[in-house]
Amino acid sequence: MSTDTTTQRVFNFSAGPANLPLPVLETIRDELIALPSAGASILEISHRSPEFLAIQADAQQRLKDLLSVPDNYRILFLQGGSRLQFSMIPMNLLGKSQCADYVITGTWGKKALDEAVREGETCVLWDGKKTNYNDLPTMSELSPSTNSAYVHITSNETIQGVQFLESPGWDVPVVCDCSSDFLSRPIDVAQYGLIYACAQKNAGPAGVTVVIIREDLLKRSSESLPGYLSYQNHASNDSLYNTPPTFGIYVVGLVARWLQETVGGLEAMATRNEKKAQQLYDVIDQSGGFYVGHSKPEHRSKMNVTFRLPSEDLQADFLAQAKQHQLCSLKGHRSVGGIRASIYNAMPLEGVQQLRDLMLEFAASSAGHEK
Amino acid sequence: MSTDTTTQRVFNFSAGPANLPLPVLETIRDELIALPSAGASILEISHRSPEFLAIQADAQQRLKDLLSVPDNYRILFLQGGSRLQFSMIPMNLLGKSQCADYVITGTWGKKALDEAVREGETCVLWDGKKTNYNDLPTMSELSPSTNSAYVHITSNETIQGVQFLESPGWDVPVVCDCSSDFLSRPIDVAQYGLIYACAQKNAGPAGVTVVIIREDLLKRSSESLPGYLSYQNHASNDSLYNTPPTFGIYVVGLVARWLQETVGGLEAMATRNEKKAQQLYDVIDQSGGFYVGHSKPEHRSKMNVTFRLPSEDLQADFLAQAKQHQLCSLKGHRSVGGIRASIYNAMPLEGVQQLRDLMLEFAASSAGHEK
Repeated sequence: MSTDTTTQRVFNFSAGPANLPLPVLETIRDELIALPSAGASILEISHRSPEFLAIQADAQQRLKDLLSVPDNYRILFLQGGSRLQFSMIPMNLLGKSQCADYVITGTWGKKALDEAVREGETCVLWDGKKTNYNDLPTMSELSPSTNSAYVHITSNETIQGVQFLESPGWDVPVVCDCSSDFLSRPIDVAQYGLIYACAQKNAGPAGVTVVIIREDLLKRSSESLPGYLSYQNHASNDSLYNTPPTFGIYVVGLVARWLQETVGGLEAMATRNEKKAQQLYDVIDQSGGFYVGHSKPEHRSKMNVTFRLPSEDLQADFLAQAKQHQLCSLKGHRSVGGIRASIYNAMPLEGVQQLRDLMLEFAASSAGHEK
Repeated sequence: MSTDTTTQRVFNFSAGPANLPLPVLETIRDELIALPSAGASILEISHRSPEFLAIQADAQQRLKDLLSVPDNYRILFLQGGSRLQFSMIPMNLLGKSQCADYVITGTWGKKALDEAVREGETCVLWDGKKTNYNDLPTMSELSPSTNSAYVHITSNETIQGVQFLESPGWDVPVVCDCSSDFLSRPIDVAQYGLIYACAQKNAGPAGVTVVIIREDLLKRSSESLPGYLSYQNHASNDSLYNTPPTFGIYVVGLVARWLQETVGGLEAMATRNEKKAQQLYDVIDQSGGFYVGHSKPEHRSKMNVTFRLPSEDLQADFLAQAKQHQLCSLKGHRSVGGIRASIYNAMPLEGVQQLRDLMLEFAASSAGHEK
């Protein structure tokens, strides 16, 4: 039988794919050879079997309950990650005489815009490039285009570490890339036309993308779209237009169950996440400038804590010491450098505390050696 | 720790997602909490971590070795299943003044054509509809269009149970949907421009699609294509254009290792598969017309054995008895009815023998009761 590998686990601060809750991993392991109900692995059963249909329905219901999704929304499980959503959104929602509005608050918002530009007319309502994406606009001060098909925002930018706390509140449909803070806090779904999230931050493994779409928007999908790229096709077949990523959907369901039954819902999860983030931001703010956070304090992400040390050499030293302490994948994204601690739902408080302790020790021991 | 669920497994004749080799499932289970090299689960590690890059490179190399893939081909791991390939193929390979040729030998070939029609000019070289797709053409007697961009074929039709044994041999690039017989036998890759296979039949779980493409065809991908839909983007980023389905790629690598180290390669696998299929076709042929195979004998699939019983009532009885014997998912596709035994690589000979025994018993016991 399997050996106990639990004790060999490190603290994994990867930005995604990222941590999963240990009880979820244990359930996957225990059911891997044969699901109790099916006599076969979740990796083997037909997507049209009653066993899988029950798993998918359960995952949908749990997401609906966790997020209080109104009845006029559909929950879809797709493939292709956020990248494919960047194209599917304008392909489905942007009409010929319309304009797609984008709010660019970091790398991912810019990539979303780049794909929309291929598909039709776009308008940039705000772009934080001039301050290297450490800032966010006040949404109520931004005005959608008069012929706006939708406004696209990114609720949390993983690379820069900025996160919207505000809800949007525009009359046009708001499309939100929630990839990196999905299920990390409550969200008022009714304020959005479409919410999407690749699972590999907070919700499951890479390879499944959750799309929550308001039903009236499905009518916008043209029948001339490539079959896989039509939201209408996926919705009218309840995500079984083609074989869905069955294993990923199963894991999303287990994560949702963990959020409900172990954590106690998204309010409780948000409290945990705020507490974790605060521990690290406190060290940054009390370090006398040794650690410099990237984001303006009022826009700091609870998911991705980004900061720099006084020099590249000290950063390399810090990463090496972190690795010795089993604190892994802390290097900032290659496009911006620095340090990034991704502390999604499944990062335990203990991991954050160990990182905090290392940051305190490292700053103290480096104090005399700085230039 | 986990309990031994091995003994609770049924024989699963699902057409896909389908059986995986038990030793592969056991490895996944044993490594699920933490990969020995990484201190974290395969479900959690970054797609840019050295541990995952090694897993992906290993999977690519094993596929290359198993299939003797020439050096001028690239092996990609994509999402979206064959359905998305149905669109990506013409979007990438079909030029404005060209025609895409299709050979329609069953349901999946027809669906591939339906997507190509949206993208440009198409030509049907052959269509088996008039005989309900129980027949195949002789490929050497078919002539591609003079301005052919490619000829698309489906090597094995899962729903009808017909399989090409011939290699194509046309001068224009041949695009082959190998989804349901990929890795089930050797294939002369050099005869194809592009081979694609969703993994969930013989190669892995649902959610990862293997594309093997000749490098010169990558030049056909227009820069105006949506980013995720460009083969060139995926190839130039070695399948890391976006976060790939990391877990699925890991499983494909484990299946490839099983084929190499346990089965002994694709020649050995083909011999096993022929032996399994022959057991069932022999029962059909020796049943005095009780069982009627769908395919003409010379085109019978080694992967999907499709047949009918004398009446719908007898079919329902047969399926019920099969289920009592733990022989599951034998119902034919809802579009054609009848019985379908999918006996991919991972279906053990024992499962086929139990099905054969049931078929013999059922025919004998029904002999007196037939109308």
